[in-house]
Amino acid sequence: MTDKPYAIGVDIGGTNTVYGIVDKRGQILKNGSIQTGVHAEIGDFLDDLTKALEAIIAEVGSKDDIKGIGVGAPNGNFFTGSIEFAPNLRWKGVIPFVEMMEERIGIPVALTNDANAAAIGEMTYGAARGMKDFIVITLGTGVGSGVVANGKLVYGHDGFAGELGHVIMRRTNGRLCGCGRSGCLEAYSSATGVARTAREYLDMRPNINSQLRTIPIENITSKDVFEAAKEGDELAKEVFEFTGQILGEAFADFVAFTSPEAIILFGGLARAGDLILNPIREHMEKNLLSIYQNKIKLLFSQLKESDAAILGASALGWEVI
Amino acid sequence: MTDKPYAIGVDIGGTNTVYGIVDKRGQILKNGSIQTGVHAEIGDFLDDLTKALEAIIAEVGSKDDIKGIGVGAPNGNFFTGSIEFAPNLRWKGVIPFVEMMEERIGIPVALTNDANAAAIGEMTYGAARGMKDFIVITLGTGVGSGVVANGKLVYGHDGFAGELGHVIMRRTNGRLCGCGRSGCLEAYSSATGVARTAREYLDMRPNINSQLRTIPIENITSKDVFEAAKEGDELAKEVFEFTGQILGEAFADFVAFTSPEAIILFGGLARAGDLILNPIREHMEKNLLSIYQNKIKLLFSQLKESDAAILGASALGWEVI
Repeated sequence: MTDKPYAIGVDIGGTNTVYGIVDKRGQILKNGSIQTGVHAEIGDFLDDLTKALEAIIAEVGSKDDIKGIGVGAPNGNFFTGSIEFAPNLRWKGVIPFVEMMEERIGIPVALTNDANAAAIGEMTYGAARGMKDFIVITLGTGVGSGVVANGKLVYGHDGFAGELGHVIMRRTNGRLCGCGRSGCLEAYSSATGVARTAREYLDMRPNINSQLRTIPIENITSKDVFEAAKEGDELAKEVFEFTGQILGEAFADFVAFTSPEAIILFGGLARAGDLILNPIREHMEKNLLSIYQNKIKLLFSQLKESDAAILGASALGWEVI
Repeated sequence: MTDKPYAIGVDIGGTNTVYGIVDKRGQILKNGSIQTGVHAEIGDFLDDLTKALEAIIAEVGSKDDIKGIGVGAPNGNFFTGSIEFAPNLRWKGVIPFVEMMEERIGIPVALTNDANAAAIGEMTYGAARGMKDFIVITLGTGVGSGVVANGKLVYGHDGFAGELGHVIMRRTNGRLCGCGRSGCLEAYSSATGVARTAREYLDMRPNINSQLRTIPIENITSKDVFEAAKEGDELAKEVFEFTGQILGEAFADFVAFTSPEAIILFGGLARAGDLILNPIREHMEKNLLSIYQNKIKLLFSQLKESDAAILGASALGWEVI
């Protein structure tokens, strides 16, 4: 379809923006990062980003060698090309990102959110190669998702499909979620949710010993819980058990929707490995309708963690028109 | 793509099988029905069905005028062409339906389940014309669904996608569902679920007056509840309120999955009109993530009820290869 040998991936986070030039086999040839948060104006940010990209493009060839630039950003909308009301970015309202960036750099740009970029990345270079129906669940500060059906990413009619972190898992006495509603999957199964569960357990069970008690309770992070669980701390293990239970229950419902070949875990919490995968599998199978039992693969992302964000976004760069 | 002017739609129910010849504008030119349940052997059933179809084909032209035959059947699997373990049919196990029918009739046959056929029917002739992302929910004895994303029906990796009647809506003290699990949407929001809610309400509130008390409690049907509600019976109206609440909560989660342009209600319970639509809309909007609020259309099927099953199945007949 194209002879251009490279695509560029850009991942915009609240603090840093990472970017890289990627070849067709998913090798990152050149990469770098700039700070996001220091730019009060989107125009200044894009000027700096363009300068940085032009420098690495010159090292591998010219702009003619770049098929497209894929950008993953919080609240990035594929259809409109805008970043819309992103709570973690300084640029407020609706930013016509694609238009502004193409104007500066003269290469086609496509935009989506981080979780969709992860799903395209897994399909292009990772655990979902060859699959036509799968779901990527990103377990980070929040819970995001990218849904692929019939070999295509599901954007929905407005570009906002795949907010699976916000299905309701507890309809009574549910935890307050950052979205303003209660009982969302994200409130339980994000990194923040894990820390919150740990705090609840420590509080509710004052007589149970745990090495987490050596940390001031407000400072406990999901990483602390992971470290403790790895060392056999029973309370910490129970936290992962509960986190995996809620994810497993949610996954059973997701399967009834698109009957995916696999659900792929991506992001920080996926590092917990079997500590989280085993309870997910147990509770997913227990809750699945019988026609789906023992058929759905649970996999970890196969994108190297430090490269995953760039690779995911770059995969979208191959698809620009 | 084709000059053949007609497709055939066949809808297999536990009691009767209806069929018809349909033109490109969705007009049914000829139709008829045979009994399903009298045939203990699938072979005998297919012999009779073939004879019946050949008779109406001869009235409009010849087999060369038929593009394809679409069949909707319980547990019909599009990928395998088999009817697999259908609880309401006499033919047990896995029936290689498409192969057996093509052998007899010499016209390409495609098979799917009833809800998927309804979704293709709405897209081809009904309320979803021109839409690329929508969900059809069938509210009958059970609750079924057909999901369309990016303009394609979502079958999933195994042909079993779209069992939205079996997402879990109540995780504690949930009603036992026909599938053997508890708390499924279908246990609350099917015609059977409506009758069950009415029985529960009558039982739990012995002091509340209701015209439903004139009917022996085991004999109450969803139709009785509908008739009572239409006449202003408060208890019956509350039954629809509760049914719509659970559907609205479920729809809010469905929207987070595929962000559809519309959710379309199909089947017997949809006849309740605003009695069920108003509480669905209220509770869906109340439970939606803010980015989806006031954007999702709730529609009723636009296929004429007596024709809907044939039209839905026939729409698949245009797509056979």
